[in-house]
Amino acid sequence: MSIKNLVVLGSGLIGGSVAKSARQSGAVNKVTVLNRLLETSEKAVTLGIADQGYDYSQLAAVCADLTPGDLVLVAVPVYTYASIFARLGDMLPAGVILTDVGSTKAEVVSAARQNWKGDLSCFVPGHPIAGSEKCGVEASDDQLFKQRRTIITPIPENSAFAIKQVKFFWELLGAEVDTMGVEHHDEILAATSHLPHLLAYGLVDSLVTLDQKTEVFRYAAGGFRDFTRIAESDPVMWRDIFLANRDTLLKQLENFEDHLKKLHQAIVDGDSKTIETILERAQTARKVFSETSPKK
Amino acid sequence: MSIKNLVVLGSGLIGGSVAKSARQSGAVNKVTVLNRLLETSEKAVTLGIADQGYDYSQLAAVCADLTPGDLVLVAVPVYTYASIFARLGDMLPAGVILTDVGSTKAEVVSAARQNWKGDLSCFVPGHPIAGSEKCGVEASDDQLFKQRRTIITPIPENSAFAIKQVKFFWELLGAEVDTMGVEHHDEILAATSHLPHLLAYGLVDSLVTLDQKTEVFRYAAGGFRDFTRIAESDPVMWRDIFLANRDTLLKQLENFEDHLKKLHQAIVDGDSKTIETILERAQTARKVFSETSPKK
Repeated sequence: MSIKNLVVLGSGLIGGSVAKSARQSGAVNKVTVLNRLLETSEKAVTLGIADQGYDYSQLAAVCADLTPGDLVLVAVPVYTYASIFARLGDMLPAGVILTDVGSTKAEVVSAARQNWKGDLSCFVPGHPIAGSEKCGVEASDDQLFKQRRTIITPIPENSAFAIKQVKFFWELLGAEVDTMGVEHHDEILAATSHLPHLLAYGLVDSLVTLDQKTEVFRYAAGGFRDFTRIAESDPVMWRDIFLANRDTLLKQLENFEDHLKKLHQAIVDGDSKTIETILERAQTARKVFSETSPKK
Repeated sequence: MSIKNLVVLGSGLIGGSVAKSARQSGAVNKVTVLNRLLETSEKAVTLGIADQGYDYSQLAAVCADLTPGDLVLVAVPVYTYASIFARLGDMLPAGVILTDVGSTKAEVVSAARQNWKGDLSCFVPGHPIAGSEKCGVEASDDQLFKQRRTIITPIPENSAFAIKQVKFFWELLGAEVDTMGVEHHDEILAATSHLPHLLAYGLVDSLVTLDQKTEVFRYAAGGFRDFTRIAESDPVMWRDIFLANRDTLLKQLENFEDHLKKLHQAIVDGDSKTIETILERAQTARKVFSETSPKK
């Protein structure tokens, strides 16, 4: 089984890595990338990530060539989804599958419902649980999805064929595919990804304002480096994720603030038993995670 | 220049790595480790980390053999410093230098002043800015201090010779040595090390209580792994650090909470400009850190 055409809209780190992995899989005949800037697409071709690349003026022509079972993957920043869906209009021939890689799914589904003229049976939202603080087509990595999970969040309108095709595609790239509801996805990701990013940005920002700022960074060690690495991620992308998943993220943030308050009070009280209990519970959970999760 | 004897009290990760690095440097004639349990010391000898190892019943005999310029390094958990200082009594011959590796210096200095009968001119507190979430003598690493900073925090009583000797010793192990005041050290470390550990423990603990706990860990990716790695650190050790540096840590925690409150409110308000400003400021600071700090 193979896929004739893959069209990637937006070849940043994730889109570029999908394109590169698809070519490397040998099971996709032709990979086309489109970007707002022609030079980004040309760079992807030069780097061997795609067979051909254009700007969006060629979108209609590229879509016209697609056949049933082909895949169009949206990998643009979340805040441009509405305009991408509007632009796609009814360009996709019947049976062409549309999917995406956005970090928040409710917002993406709502953007599709409001802005896309196509057939919702063919749009299967997805989210590869992989990434890096790096960005841009140069950071594309054909190993990025291997042995990592990709979550797909089918919507009620989806055809069984569309779901099957998207699942098959991610498995081609080496991912383990799990299926869950849109809201459920957004809750899980708020806890494991959005909240940690928020805290890392918040911590670094709190240090920047200190008088001893320069020294603080001078004496920071490995723990600090690991803890704050994700604060190097793209601020515009994360601003949009925080806003797109606002209500769910706020619930997780409030849960965290409640826990931190308890730890704060225990330190004020010098309550060493409570501190130790909390630290031990966290250590145990983190060790289980460490032993059961992939190492990269 | 060389050192005749190094005695390490407590050969866990840091003490063991000091012993191993000292032997590997070739500039220390004999490395002796002492531990509460004889088997820990024997393991250190078997692993080639020390020349000889005993339990504390041999402390007086080991100390009696020391000569001026020799070093005794305290690397036990912070909460046992008082008893170690008491046990050392006046065992150290004149001119033998005492130093330590504790993560909070005010508490250590106070434990020495209250419990040690020795000559304070010879006790130069220190703290290598290096470590790992691993622990135990098996994790000893003779590269741990290379090109990393070690902070020494001399006290007013110190002799110039004692300070010079401790500095020389850490440089032998490959460290860059910086000197600062006790309180200043504790402020910097509260920001760069104690607070991040507190937040990592707090985050993991907040996730443990979720209904979707298992799933949350199932779908956690690289960002989460990096962010929470330090929550695997020893809970008893960190409980003691949080309490030993309580007032300074609470100041940093309150500063963080203020910043988080602003970010929280901006998300509630959908204030994308403020969110972006905060995220960008943090990203810029983190990138500068990334470019200027050692990579390991």
